[in-house]
Amino acid sequence: MASKVVICGVGLIGGSFALALKKSALALRQEVRFVGMGRTRAPLEQALQLGVIDEIETDWATALAGADLVLLGMPVGQMPAVMRALVPHLEPWTIVTDGGSTKSDVVAAARSAFGDRIGQFVPGHPIAGAEKSGVAAAKADLYRDKRVVLTPLSENAPGDVAAVRAVWELCGANVSQLAPDEHDRVFAAVSHLPHLLAFALVHDLASRANADQLFGFAAGGFRDFTRIASSHPEMWRDICLANRIALLAELDAYLAELLRARVLLASADSAGLEAMFATARARRDAWLDSLAPSIGE
Amino acid sequence: MASKVVICGVGLIGGSFALALKKSALALRQEVRFVGMGRTRAPLEQALQLGVIDEIETDWATALAGADLVLLGMPVGQMPAVMRALVPHLEPWTIVTDGGSTKSDVVAAARSAFGDRIGQFVPGHPIAGAEKSGVAAAKADLYRDKRVVLTPLSENAPGDVAAVRAVWELCGANVSQLAPDEHDRVFAAVSHLPHLLAFALVHDLASRANADQLFGFAAGGFRDFTRIASSHPEMWRDICLANRIALLAELDAYLAELLRARVLLASADSAGLEAMFATARARRDAWLDSLAPSIGE
Repeated sequence: MASKVVICGVGLIGGSFALALKKSALALRQEVRFVGMGRTRAPLEQALQLGVIDEIETDWATALAGADLVLLGMPVGQMPAVMRALVPHLEPWTIVTDGGSTKSDVVAAARSAFGDRIGQFVPGHPIAGAEKSGVAAAKADLYRDKRVVLTPLSENAPGDVAAVRAVWELCGANVSQLAPDEHDRVFAAVSHLPHLLAFALVHDLASRANADQLFGFAAGGFRDFTRIASSHPEMWRDICLANRIALLAELDAYLAELLRARVLLASADSAGLEAMFATARARRDAWLDSLAPSIGE
Repeated sequence: MASKVVICGVGLIGGSFALALKKSALALRQEVRFVGMGRTRAPLEQALQLGVIDEIETDWATALAGADLVLLGMPVGQMPAVMRALVPHLEPWTIVTDGGSTKSDVVAAARSAFGDRIGQFVPGHPIAGAEKSGVAAAKADLYRDKRVVLTPLSENAPGDVAAVRAVWELCGANVSQLAPDEHDRVFAAVSHLPHLLAFALVHDLASRANADQLFGFAAGGFRDFTRIASSHPEMWRDICLANRIALLAELDAYLAELLRARVLLASADSAGLEAMFATARARRDAWLDSLAPSIGE
């Protein structure tokens, strides 16, 4: 295992990564130093106090000297600037990976920032998290039995990809691989679109003159349907913008589906509505049956 | 309390109503007989075995003789036929109430079936339930701290409305009142639309050539967003059809909201997207803070 790991952006994702690796390092009797870097000081101090990191660095050269692994844990919108700042100070052997929820844009930013050192960047996406964010929510078992998707580049050395995979497996994750654009199309459908839909519903109802009455009668179904509308606005703004081509395609497919549902409803097509609902329920229940007991966000 | 209660449709709603009232009757040392009626025999036998009802009747005249209270617990689509069958056998003092999720259509059906006896029908809607249905899922505390909305008619005697309210309060529920059409507009927004949206998303993804891959990467956010897509297809077909005017209005408002979100996305309006997400999160979090610890479905 790496002996110096730099966590850039010590929040829920980076903090949980550090805690999980610390636990594994302890079990394996390995010495690993965790260094925290970030755009603001307070969360780093908190991470230090919580034992998530061992030291705080504010200078890229010092932080990256001798580093074996760097995890970028900030929202995807901040990654291009961070990459440009860190690349000049990378050791030739340092592997950089990330926890960004979109991959095509992160890879494009990395190609621009890393230049001919792009092979040192192995893109990744842990499917974990919660509405909660920040290092206070970090926990060593966040990735246990969760999926991590790596989207390796043709320039990556197979050994470096294997190393990143091994590190995530030490965190307890199940690692799979997709091409970056395939990753973004899949997550536009099963994650980014649902988030947008939930935000839009709450926003729509919040703007009504009788919003208080509406929320007064909202119950458990509404609560679960909108849970992801309590997600972090800045993070989801970045994700939606970063993946907006794939997300627009998914949104348009969904709008078309809603218009089909509207026709069934307006024409009181009883059999058509029931068939749509029954197909959905059967598919969802089959999916639930196939799930591991613990799944990611 | 009533001494003879007839439950028509002994599923989750009717069965839990009977169990809750049985418990209260026991505590109050009242003798109450619970009679089950239903379109099929098997769930009635099951309800009898589970102690949810005390006897099964198959004949309306016998079931309703001496009855003080009747609860209609079947899907709203079946109510008109049931009402027409039971009205000729009602005692002059019997109060009929229901657990239907829509009210304007139930009231219209009741007006047609009850005629000048419409005052005996006090419409109601318990905001409880789950994806589970059937008497096996019934439980005495289903309505504890949940909301029940009554939509009384001008023909109801105040004492009869108070009696239905009291019975639901014995079940542990918080009872409020709305006009039937107001009820339907509110629940179109906070319940019926979210169900339609969740069914539509799962249906959309299930129809894709790469559906298995998509569901393979779906995680916790998707699971909660689509939980209500595991709801009962027949029940939700009936609800959507019964309330389709209000539901179409809500669907159109939501389509307009999605088109606004689409403009923000297509024009990469970063501030606009973040403002939309932040407003939604703040409103939802304020709502969560205001909730009783236990809310209904």
